[in-house]
Amino acid sequence: MQEPVQDLFTVNNLWMMISTILVFIMHLGFATLEAGLTRAKNTVNILFKNTIIPAIGLLTYALVGFNLMYPGADFAGSIFGFAGFGLSLPEGWDTSAYNEGYTFFTDFIFQAMFAATAATIVSGAVAERVKLGPFITFSLLYVGICYPIVGMWKWGGGFLHELSTPFYDFAGSTIVHSVGGWGALVGAFLLGPRIGKYTPTGMKAIPGHNLPMATMGVFLLWFGWFGFNGGSVLSADPGAVSKVFVTTSLAAAAGAIGALIASYFKFKTYDITMVLNGILAGLVGITAGADQMGVTDSIIIGFIGGALVVFAVVLFDKIKIDDPVGAISVHLVGGIWGTLAVGIFGDLAGWGQLYAQLLGIASVGLFCFATSWLIFFSLKRTVGIRVDEKEEIEGLDINEHSMRAYPDFAPKD
Amino acid sequence: MQEPVQDLFTVNNLWMMISTILVFIMHLGFATLEAGLTRAKNTVNILFKNTIIPAIGLLTYALVGFNLMYPGADFAGSIFGFAGFGLSLPEGWDTSAYNEGYTFFTDFIFQAMFAATAATIVSGAVAERVKLGPFITFSLLYVGICYPIVGMWKWGGGFLHELSTPFYDFAGSTIVHSVGGWGALVGAFLLGPRIGKYTPTGMKAIPGHNLPMATMGVFLLWFGWFGFNGGSVLSADPGAVSKVFVTTSLAAAAGAIGALIASYFKFKTYDITMVLNGILAGLVGITAGADQMGVTDSIIIGFIGGALVVFAVVLFDKIKIDDPVGAISVHLVGGIWGTLAVGIFGDLAGWGQLYAQLLGIASVGLFCFATSWLIFFSLKRTVGIRVDEKEEIEGLDINEHSMRAYPDFAPKD
Amino acid sequence: MQEPVQDLFTVNNLWMMISTILVFIMHLGFATLEAGLTRAKNTVNILFKNTIIPAIGLLTYALVGFNLMYPGADFAGSIFGFAGFGLSLPEGWDTSAYNEGYTFFTDFIFQAMFAATAATIVSGAVAERVKLGPFITFSLLYVGICYPIVGMWKWGGGFLHELSTPFYDFAGSTIVHSVGGWGALVGAFLLGPRIGKYTPTGMKAIPGHNLPMATMGVFLLWFGWFGFNGGSVLSADPGAVSKVFVTTSLAAAAGAIGALIASYFKFKTYDITMVLNGILAGLVGITAGADQMGVTDSIIIGFIGGALVVFAVVLFDKIKIDDPVGAISVHLVGGIWGTLAVGIFGDLAGWGQLYAQLLGIASVGLFCFATSWLIFFSLKRTVGIRVDEKEEIEGLDINEHSMRAYPDFAPKD
Repeated sequence: MQEPVQDLFTVNNLWMMISTILVFIMHLGFATLEAGLTRAKNTVNILFKNTIIPAIGLLTYALVGFNLMYPGADFAGSIFGFAGFGLSLPEGWDTSAYNEGYTFFTDFIFQAMFAATAATIVSGAVAERVKLGPFITFSLLYVGICYPIVGMWKWGGGFLHELSTPFYDFAGSTIVHSVGGWGALVGAFLLGPRIGKYTPTGMKAIPGHNLPMATMGVFLLWFGWFGFNGGSVLSADPGAVSKVFVTTSLAAAAGAIGALIASYFKFKTYDITMVLNGILAGLVGITAGADQMGVTDSIIIGFIGGALVVFAVVLFDKIKIDDPVGAISVHLVGGIWGTLAVGIFGDLAGWGQLYAQLLGIASVGLFCFATSWLIFFSLKRTVGIRVDEKEEIEGLDINEHSMRAYPDFAPKD
Repeated sequence: MQEPVQDLFTVNNLWMMISTILVFIMHLGFATLEAGLTRAKNTVNILFKNTIIPAIGLLTYALVGFNLMYPGADFAGSIFGFAGFGLSLPEGWDTSAYNEGYTFFTDFIFQAMFAATAATIVSGAVAERVKLGPFITFSLLYVGICYPIVGMWKWGGGFLHELSTPFYDFAGSTIVHSVGGWGALVGAFLLGPRIGKYTPTGMKAIPGHNLPMATMGVFLLWFGWFGFNGGSVLSADPGAVSKVFVTTSLAAAAGAIGALIASYFKFKTYDITMVLNGILAGLVGITAGADQMGVTDSIIIGFIGGALVVFAVVLFDKIKIDDPVGAISVHLVGGIWGTLAVGIFGDLAGWGQLYAQLLGIASVGLFCFATSWLIFFSLKRTVGIRVDEKEEIEGLDINEHSMRAYPDFAPKD
Repeated sequence: MQEPVQDLFTVNNLWMMISTILVFIMHLGFATLEAGLTRAKNTVNILFKNTIIPAIGLLTYALVGFNLMYPGADFAGSIFGFAGFGLSLPEGWDTSAYNEGYTFFTDFIFQAMFAATAATIVSGAVAERVKLGPFITFSLLYVGICYPIVGMWKWGGGFLHELSTPFYDFAGSTIVHSVGGWGALVGAFLLGPRIGKYTPTGMKAIPGHNLPMATMGVFLLWFGWFGFNGGSVLSADPGAVSKVFVTTSLAAAAGAIGALIASYFKFKTYDITMVLNGILAGLVGITAGADQMGVTDSIIIGFIGGALVVFAVVLFDKIKIDDPVGAISVHLVGGIWGTLAVGIFGDLAGWGQLYAQLLGIASVGLFCFATSWLIFFSLKRTVGIRVDEKEEIEGLDINEHSMRAYPDFAPKD
């Protein structure tokens, strides 16, 4: 007969594994969301990127990422640490001797599923014009190296965690979503807008080609977020996880309503793409403090996140940063908002916490902005990052992939 | 070291949380099913409704629904009780002191995910002609107030639960599906049929525009039903939950075969929409007694449910009630059948149980019919519930949402 | 208060039930993958088959399959055993007295969800030309009888399990995937290629009509594979299940990269269908030894599986076996590779294990080839298995189902 503690370990580990599966399916959510919000002629390209990125993410995380992000006591530094290439099993890896919540392999695979999301966020913002090879190169470096270094600053015990009032980011509004968001901003800026988006007579909307698919993407992301946030409890603790479920769901719901109201006042129509992005912004917003917020806080945070996304989308269009799916508005703006919200509504709300949050936002932002600029700019100056005009007009599918996503249907006009 | 009972509480609560996630994804199932079975020109509208309804459902359930449905001993009545606005945490909310199966927040979020399904069922029946604003108003009232009042009658300890042989409805054939079904019937009747559906020369089928999406919807609903029925055990009890999995799956499978055979004899063709609705009818049918039925009972119940749906669809067309997706046949007819089946096959089968089941069906039906009539009729007489003819012909997407679901594809002819 | 062992039983059983749900959704994965990789005119037909097969699979498995595959000690034989029709509950079915990992009903439903996959694999290979009735007949016999007999040889304690070095097939590279693959090979061969596929001037690619749907299928299959492989641990053992998650995911990721590289060298383009099939081949490949492999082994196995699928697709086209979705390459070639890999990388790697693996591959192959030939050939000689030329050219949807999958969109050309 086993010790009771072993039973609890088995339950905790089970929830972490199920959370892993839930985070995994978010990659399908991103794939369908991004493909749905762009044009049919670039669909294969988006699917290709969103299929390859998780594959690369998993492999690079096994090779270097995990040991950069969680170097362990012997190798840790306050801004950089590395425990060596590959995975090596510590003693007690498969029992509660490793960790009271999960095994070494559960730890690795849960974290690995997170890693690829950062690059997937970028994918949407650079869609319909980025060259495939350079984008894959960017993803490889960004997911394999930049993401885990930043992650270590907080989750691996680095300097953001060691502040007197530590920076707080429960499941990654900054550490995951803003990391993706900064890369998205830099990529979209360096690429420039899609042909025909900003004309002398004003901004021209380029509608997504498959709104059911975009809707499916958002539902799948919400679905996966139960694991993204719920799994970040790092155990199946009944009180903590169920609270996270409530805050996460209410923020998502309030995000939908916030975006609905803001977009109705702004555009006088019921814009489903805004509602969808409002849900995501609500989710991103609650992520930093999903374990600390009360019911009312969560609704306020989600509502503001959803409304913000509408104004952010308008703003980025005003400054001619062309983000086909709204990734920067959702993940960067939403991520910053959620991170600040911890300083406003969280357990230690106040100037001390707010300062820590700002420091976290700024340091992560600086590093991610600089490294993604370095990578994208180097690629731009060497191999180029943008497809040529003819290819962009014809579509990336036929040029980079020699196939169409929907060959049996007649295109419009 | 924790007490063993704490371990079991953690497992039970984990299963209830996972069931919550499964019920959540049913909303994507409804969205894709309803969009797939209607025309491309109304797709954005359907997606919009099916995205906003869960958001509204979660928020109203937090505001009033939960405290109407489960008012608790102090506030309970036999037909109405209310424990006040908002959520307030009872003592021991996060431990087994609240309930041996789950925490307060798990209780709330699991129930909240159920709530929105009732309005989503209505959404399908009124599709392609209902005005958006009035429908949202209806949903808000129906999900926020009518559904939890009826739910209290049985699950909150009301009069249906207090009968000498209590009304039995395990996971909601009546309490959830028929509640939606009655609203669907009233909505479809008061709106009248879609233009062109019933002509002087007979009924004209209006085919759904995306059958892969409809199929996906049914699979996602079946997937979610493992949580809908399995979670209704209210613990992870191995015997009870695994039995529910078997009865639920076999009823769904038998529903497919029942509908296949009935529709083949009726229409001499292999009609996938009938098979899909047959699966759903099998699932709705088993829901009231999923914990009581044996293997053979489940197959019989599912088979009859699946066959019934074919005849019901034909019947509603005969009396010119236009239900684009078959929601009334699946959820109302299937729900009544499943509820009666408990009196025929259940643990206490016999006249006593049958009487209780009929009383439950009738009282819920009367209340839901009356309240949905009241809401829809008031809206019809004031703001109107039906879009104008021009809008209906052009499609709701372009008129209410200023966008198309598939702008890159050429429409047929 | 319960015994601690009861808690652990509850957790183990919970994981097996969740695995059941995950394997269930693989049927949606197959449906969308196969529909996406074929033409729009045959989509309803594919959805119909993939909806009916799981229904038939569940019902026949309850009627005969389970008792053929797991006849139990009293009825077992080394190549055939049968414990009678229907399900009968053994004593202690709902407690750990039945089995330390799960209840009788969990056992049944988990295995039943596996059963239908074999026929679903065949479905893809015979798509776009097989007659519906005969295919359903084949599926019924193959899933109901052939699959469980073979399964018994290993998992029910038959002769492959009794070898001195037993044949090893953890979750079914051979017992499930190759079983489907052999049926697919025989079916595709006896049907002959689709009209227009192999012309005097060479092979003509017939592109799939909906690549987002195909991509969704692969993600759903990967998602489900966490239950397919993870559930095959038959408990929630933290070390074993989390290891399986890692090996499964890394093999899938490496399969994507293997296929990407092989297809780029072969076709000089980024072919998403190859990457998708590469992921599946990686998954099929790791399935036989997912519990035994290390991190590096898994990556090698997946990579080779992914590369192999590219060459296999080319090879089958060379010998004019027309497999519209690549099912034979993925499930038969990948299944054989994965089974052999256990003899190369597994715990007992060496000639003894390799011999056992070869014996398993050969005996299962012989039986499945012979029985599927017998069934398909008998059907061909009597009712015919191929639709007539006019129907094949017009599409099966309009001829067998009197409906179109996408009636609102204009077809190409």
